[in-house]
Amino acid sequence: EDVKIKVGAHAFLDYESVEVAGNDLVDGTELRLFRVDVGGSVGDYVFKSNVDFAGDDVKVKDLFVDFKGDTTIRFGNFKIPNGLEQPSSLYATAFAEGNSVSKINGLGRQLGIAAYRSFGNVHLAGGVFGADVNDLSDKDIYSVSGRAAWSLEPMGEDSVLHLGVSTRYRDSGSSDTLFSYGQKPGANSAPKTVKTSGIGDSDLFVGLEAAWLYQGFSLQSEFSQTMVDCAATTCSEDPDFQAYYVDATYFIGGSRTYKDGLFKRDKVFNPVGDGGWGALAFSARYDVADLNDAVVMGGRQETVVLGATWYRDNFVRIMANYAHSEFEDTPAYGDESADAFILRAQIELY
Amino acid sequence: EDVKIKVGAHAFLDYESVEVAGNDLVDGTELRLFRVDVGGSVGDYVFKSNVDFAGDDVKVKDLFVDFKGDTTIRFGNFKIPNGLEQPSSLYATAFAEGNSVSKINGLGRQLGIAAYRSFGNVHLAGGVFGADVNDLSDKDIYSVSGRAAWSLEPMGEDSVLHLGVSTRYRDSGSSDTLFSYGQKPGANSAPKTVKTSGIGDSDLFVGLEAAWLYQGFSLQSEFSQTMVDCAATTCSEDPDFQAYYVDATYFIGGSRTYKDGLFKRDKVFNPVGDGGWGALAFSARYDVADLNDAVVMGGRQETVVLGATWYRDNFVRIMANYAHSEFEDTPAYGDESADAFILRAQIELY
Amino acid sequence: EDVKIKVGAHAFLDYESVEVAGNDLVDGTELRLFRVDVGGSVGDYVFKSNVDFAGDDVKVKDLFVDFKGDTTIRFGNFKIPNGLEQPSSLYATAFAEGNSVSKINGLGRQLGIAAYRSFGNVHLAGGVFGADVNDLSDKDIYSVSGRAAWSLEPMGEDSVLHLGVSTRYRDSGSSDTLFSYGQKPGANSAPKTVKTSGIGDSDLFVGLEAAWLYQGFSLQSEFSQTMVDCAATTCSEDPDFQAYYVDATYFIGGSRTYKDGLFKRDKVFNPVGDGGWGALAFSARYDVADLNDAVVMGGRQETVVLGATWYRDNFVRIMANYAHSEFEDTPAYGDESADAFILRAQIELY
Repeated sequence: EDVKIKVGAHAFLDYESVEVAGNDLVDGTELRLFRVDVGGSVGDYVFKSNVDFAGDDVKVKDLFVDFKGDTTIRFGNFKIPNGLEQPSSLYATAFAEGNSVSKINGLGRQLGIAAYRSFGNVHLAGGVFGADVNDLSDKDIYSVSGRAAWSLEPMGEDSVLHLGVSTRYRDSGSSDTLFSYGQKPGANSAPKTVKTSGIGDSDLFVGLEAAWLYQGFSLQSEFSQTMVDCAATTCSEDPDFQAYYVDATYFIGGSRTYKDGLFKRDKVFNPVGDGGWGALAFSARYDVADLNDAVVMGGRQETVVLGATWYRDNFVRIMANYAHSEFEDTPAYGDESADAFILRAQIELY
Repeated sequence: EDVKIKVGAHAFLDYESVEVAGNDLVDGTELRLFRVDVGGSVGDYVFKSNVDFAGDDVKVKDLFVDFKGDTTIRFGNFKIPNGLEQPSSLYATAFAEGNSVSKINGLGRQLGIAAYRSFGNVHLAGGVFGADVNDLSDKDIYSVSGRAAWSLEPMGEDSVLHLGVSTRYRDSGSSDTLFSYGQKPGANSAPKTVKTSGIGDSDLFVGLEAAWLYQGFSLQSEFSQTMVDCAATTCSEDPDFQAYYVDATYFIGGSRTYKDGLFKRDKVFNPVGDGGWGALAFSARYDVADLNDAVVMGGRQETVVLGATWYRDNFVRIMANYAHSEFEDTPAYGDESADAFILRAQIELY
Repeated sequence: EDVKIKVGAHAFLDYESVEVAGNDLVDGTELRLFRVDVGGSVGDYVFKSNVDFAGDDVKVKDLFVDFKGDTTIRFGNFKIPNGLEQPSSLYATAFAEGNSVSKINGLGRQLGIAAYRSFGNVHLAGGVFGADVNDLSDKDIYSVSGRAAWSLEPMGEDSVLHLGVSTRYRDSGSSDTLFSYGQKPGANSAPKTVKTSGIGDSDLFVGLEAAWLYQGFSLQSEFSQTMVDCAATTCSEDPDFQAYYVDATYFIGGSRTYKDGLFKRDKVFNPVGDGGWGALAFSARYDVADLNDAVVMGGRQETVVLGATWYRDNFVRIMANYAHSEFEDTPAYGDESADAFILRAQIELY
């Protein structure tokens, strides 16, 4: 059997300027992400790994093998199948930071096993998971996730209508690792403006997804309801939290791409190296995280993000984001607002 | 000269359940090993490096260059030539954790220079070593190791009889890094059940090895005697420690492989990708570590390990091990027993 | 567009023996450097990254992209364009440790953007920079660097005369990260013998460079003047610091190489793998760091370094250095001397 090996690298260099409740908190440059990939394929399976060297700790991100077939089985550390933006490619958005549906629910990578199967336009995924491989202290967490997505091309080949639903039940397994919920005001270096302390013994996430693409134009939205089962010592009444967002993107000289229920890498029609000027994308998002319910007051935050991205080609892009957040009833700041400006240079080799 | 570069990756994902002295100590999943290799060859030498990203610290493992010739000179950080299982491939055993000969003597990788030469069926190796490259604080340690192995094919090409002897003298170099001795009850996350404190100013290891292979069947055994020279402040009388094990493996649809005095990667005759069902190996081991001698009471432990491994092909395998240990006179547990169950998914690309 | 990916690795294994002011401080072996490269090119740009795994922390070193053209734009974390030895290849010297011009001024890698352009024999470079990507706490530092180099071939193709000047203004940006200045006595594990505490709010570096190559023979020299602007709380009068060195190297069977204002990798004419005996280089350097000025007494150090390097080929070399330092008025040692012996095995694959 022939072994094919692939190596790649990805770097995000960010400038951030953040003001929260009238105070300048961050004004500087950082290496936000520097990932090196080692992967490959042999026969009917595919191995992927990548490690992030940015920051003080080296972190293992993807580390999985896919056994390909009518049903693909994935085993290792990988993105759980919940939501639309989070399990899609990190390189498939014009926004620098994640939406509140992903963030307050901690959607990310965990160690587990999952199955993926498509029946025509219907894409199903489900799996069982432990903690992220980097969280050695959270060994007792487990979760079960499932997702169904349905897509069609209502206006021909360059159009997509996507509808999806996903759910996750997770159990903290121990009183030392209760779940908390929070979101930042649109910038990674900012503190969490809305947040709860560790309250959840277990919780049930239900997420709804919709997206519409037509040539360079796209609309995308997600909604989540999270039903928290409080630990006995944390809250007398169980809260339900909501998050949702809706965004629109317009591409000139390129387009978003979609396959089997997820967004893939954006496409650039005329790269600079081929005599073109690259591509431009303009985006706007409205995003809400509501962590006030029952006896819990984690705050409620509305954020508007405006984004513009210039794609030199498939390997280099410059992204600018401006985010304005208004929040109320927050534990640390009360009723206030925040502004964040992010300039990202993204360089990849893959 | 043509430079050939090779990249690879290896991951072990372990589930462990461990009970020591009646207490459930571990019940969880962890990334036991995640190594990325970068190596290659140019002309008459070969460079190998691999780095382990599992756990909180990134560790350099192999990092050496071989100058090939009648006598091969190896320089860098690599496995010292002592014992049979330890310097053999990590992927050449059906047991998840190492034997007591390797473990109580701390056989592993160190920074040094060694020479390897074969005279027909006789394989000689010897070298001088400092500390492991990851142990910056142990700079004063040095050791000298030598090994002789003799092999023949008593029943034709698919048989091997191996006999070997190796020795090591090591000196701690300073009273801050005295040698200690210990072994766990068959599981990596378990504590050391038999162990001494730091007592050895220097020690002399002598190891004997024997193995017999015939088609799918193999027997393997090692014995070690370790003569400790106590530091003046630690023990009034110098102890001698013993360890030994004997094991048997039966392979269906595959075999162990042996070359020049060491075991290499197991072979799978009919990989799943080629229409086969892979291979199965069943193993049993009896292992003893005796750290009671003279005035030192580190305890004595007997362990029985039963193992079964399914090989999908040369890249993916699933291993199950059950280990039962009985120990006596141990510093932390007295006379008690331990049980460990390990399930390992091993995924490689190379 | 065709993506070409390159992987490489570099290891330095050092033995050091250091005596400072009559005390044996270091006598041991360490992994001084272990870097893995992932890089490549696509169309008109080149991506380079390398990560150092030696020591307790994993550090990102190079991480940049070059946009090639008449003017090349470099963006990311890379060596600032100041001085001659420092921005040249690390593999282009017969001395194990850096000169005082580089070291007291902290010339190294920083996150920034720079432009490079050659007009015939004149090579210009300039850029703006923040902190090194590994120094997350120094976010407020910024600097501006510029360099001009002029070269010609006075005695034909195998000769080079190089003259250069560079300057850097840098601002600490905050009173928490004032600049300090120091240098060790020719060995990496030694403490800084001459040094100041954190005094500089900003400073201006001016450096002069000269080098002369003819066949196997080379002369090289740099001089720097550093005008420190003290923070109000640190010194009442602003000091100026000087550093300079001059060295000579004689190559047998090889040569240093020079291109566009910088030294590149040394060349070996008859590698061992091709039936030759490799190459030898003998070097001597005289180096001065003077940190005594105005009200600041950081000490003054003179160092003589003698070096001999055997190159097996382009991939393996053995380097021996002996350094003798005499220093006076130093904060920690007064008027004393130091001796350092370094033996380095350097192994590379690229």
